[in-house]
Amino acid sequence: MLAEIITIGDEILIGQIVDTNSAWMAQQLNAAGIRVKQISSVSDQKAHIITALNEAQQRADIILITGGLGPTKDDITKTTLAEYFGVGMRRDDDALENVKQIFARYNRPLLEVNLHQADVPANCEVISNKNGTAPGMWFHENSKVFVSMPGVPFEMKYIMDEAVIPKLKAMFQLPYIYHKTILTVGEGESFLAERIADIEDALPAHIKLAYLPKLGSVRLRLSGYGDNEAQLTKEVNDQANRIIERVSNVIAADDDIALEKAILDKMAAQQLTLSVAESCTGGYLSHLFTQHAGSSQVFLGGTVSYSDELKKSILGVQEETLWQHGAVSRETVNEMLNGALLNFKSDYAIAVTGIAGPGGGTPEKPVGTVWIAVGNATGKLIKTYSFGNKRTQNIERTATAALGMLNTLLADVNK
Amino acid sequence: MLAEIITIGDEILIGQIVDTNSAWMAQQLNAAGIRVKQISSVSDQKAHIITALNEAQQRADIILITGGLGPTKDDITKTTLAEYFGVGMRRDDDALENVKQIFARYNRPLLEVNLHQADVPANCEVISNKNGTAPGMWFHENSKVFVSMPGVPFEMKYIMDEAVIPKLKAMFQLPYIYHKTILTVGEGESFLAERIADIEDALPAHIKLAYLPKLGSVRLRLSGYGDNEAQLTKEVNDQANRIIERVSNVIAADDDIALEKAILDKMAAQQLTLSVAESCTGGYLSHLFTQHAGSSQVFLGGTVSYSDELKKSILGVQEETLWQHGAVSRETVNEMLNGALLNFKSDYAIAVTGIAGPGGGTPEKPVGTVWIAVGNATGKLIKTYSFGNKRTQNIERTATAALGMLNTLLADVNK
Repeated sequence: MLAEIITIGDEILIGQIVDTNSAWMAQQLNAAGIRVKQISSVSDQKAHIITALNEAQQRADIILITGGLGPTKDDITKTTLAEYFGVGMRRDDDALENVKQIFARYNRPLLEVNLHQADVPANCEVISNKNGTAPGMWFHENSKVFVSMPGVPFEMKYIMDEAVIPKLKAMFQLPYIYHKTILTVGEGESFLAERIADIEDALPAHIKLAYLPKLGSVRLRLSGYGDNEAQLTKEVNDQANRIIERVSNVIAADDDIALEKAILDKMAAQQLTLSVAESCTGGYLSHLFTQHAGSSQVFLGGTVSYSDELKKSILGVQEETLWQHGAVSRETVNEMLNGALLNFKSDYAIAVTGIAGPGGGTPEKPVGTVWIAVGNATGKLIKTYSFGNKRTQNIERTATAALGMLNTLLADVNK
Repeated sequence: MLAEIITIGDEILIGQIVDTNSAWMAQQLNAAGIRVKQISSVSDQKAHIITALNEAQQRADIILITGGLGPTKDDITKTTLAEYFGVGMRRDDDALENVKQIFARYNRPLLEVNLHQADVPANCEVISNKNGTAPGMWFHENSKVFVSMPGVPFEMKYIMDEAVIPKLKAMFQLPYIYHKTILTVGEGESFLAERIADIEDALPAHIKLAYLPKLGSVRLRLSGYGDNEAQLTKEVNDQANRIIERVSNVIAADDDIALEKAILDKMAAQQLTLSVAESCTGGYLSHLFTQHAGSSQVFLGGTVSYSDELKKSILGVQEETLWQHGAVSRETVNEMLNGALLNFKSDYAIAVTGIAGPGGGTPEKPVGTVWIAVGNATGKLIKTYSFGNKRTQNIERTATAALGMLNTLLADVNK
């Protein structure tokens, strides 16, 4: 079963936004056993959209379209789809009710232009969009499925998860695909590959292994293709367990979850609490934890002590330590860790300090120099890293390294 | 002058990587006066690549192709291009020398498979790639330009900057395109559209206005197309100024920058400092500020006081306030703000507290209830919002709302 994705909107074609929707949609489709043949980004022009629809439906069975559904004049997807299918427009009662409810909830006056959000091509089935005023639209024409969705990522994702993927699964006889993901941290892709080379070489043809590296952590994804769900699941899980046993020292989770979520889960199970003292990561570590529901059970909070003053006043770092060793040093990060454990009264803490760049580097401590400490009342790990000269990467790599260190410490404690 | 971008490779189609190359290339092309008509991601299959080339050259004058130039068997771009143009392959001396130098530099043995990196279609002009073994290739056939480049971002960017853009500028008489973006916060897309409807309707045909909304902020982008650079720039800026004057109360920047960067820039210009007391945003606000280089000039840091204990110990929120009004209340956020200003010694502070969800809601304070305070020694704004039941959105919307309130307060102070 083949699909194509068409994204509509000039903002992608002028490079103002990066199209992250398509990769997410491709992941969901692949997981459901549907291959993506082509992804096309086209302009907000009727003739161009129609050409793209014609080309896509010649190659694929399912055409997913995002974008161009806003209330303003440059949004022409709906009228173009109506023209493409040779139908008129109708005002959909459910979509209208949804628009009214959303405006009522936010206490905003409902303008005429907003009512048009409920207008859809006459031949579509409306898919409810609880997160926005633009409805999703499902068309079944000439044995092909066309779905039009808003380009706003969380609206598109809701419609995909709640309606599009389930409807496609119900409609088509899709092959069974079972994915099992193992999350590792602290070892590079090629080293992992060496350690499990014999397991990988001995995999049966219908099970594939992919390495998905991302800034210091590597996901190993086993994908099995077959018809017998129970047998395939067991086969893939057996292979996964062989890998987990082999590289157990770098395993963070035997599931496709975020690294920080794996840590939150482990700590929650042991009723442990965590606090942070962040400098160069500037709140990013806290944000990683707190984006997850239920994180408050483990994560108490902490400080973003970007200035030396706050390192002293909130964490109790000594003036003399900063003066003698500098803010980016083993001594400072150690005092930051101790300050967090003492003041924030958590079981474990993470402290980071470093030079994210692009300014602030010196010959001895170039941009990318980072010190990280993790620990509890009885044990700690302190390490330094050199991450290079890109600010965003330095922040992300520092966070991943800190999470990896905490993962190691928690594993050692439980041995 | 129209261009199309074709990216070749299954890793985009299975959603393993997000295509960031195309947005970057589109930016460079637009800045050079070349409009991008379509961006297509296609699979590593000869027939599919040839179809994509045929479709693109019917719509555009310039076709830029990335990917599929590696040494492994699934990389077939070069032989496909040779077939497309009906020519054979030749080994290029300069490209071969480059491959040899790169292998010598890294002390790696040169395998036969690596020599093939210097093989190119006979009709191409080779573009040197100093960052990798795959050469860029420039084709001029049937009055169309085709350029093939590696998909590795820093190799592609080098070839674009050093060769492709300069060659295109030398070859074509390019129109001038001027984009001007206005960043607004605090008013929805349709309300903005109503307020400036007459300005939009009166725009000349060669100037277009686009609305780019994102969780509480809306970018207004004017794009002008013409030949006379000075005149066009003035025309677009005049239109932008009319819009800015009309909706001045919601303007954050007259430039295409992030909202928090606009605030950092304004505060840096006035040598003002900022701290935060975050609860439900959990470090996200701090992260927004600190991702920007130079933020430490303004942003001192603050606390992620996720637990009630930390609200008391770090910010000095009163036990009685929490007990009587709850952690999510006007009284608590007010004390958080006062605590931040007092303890972190910044000119301005932001305090947020709310129920991000999915747990923690009550009938009186459902998930999505948020209190935000921004202020300095002499003035403050305190507001409550109801953002709904999605955790990630609640965090992002709260941050945007807080930034909008600070933007308003800074504007009022400067009146």
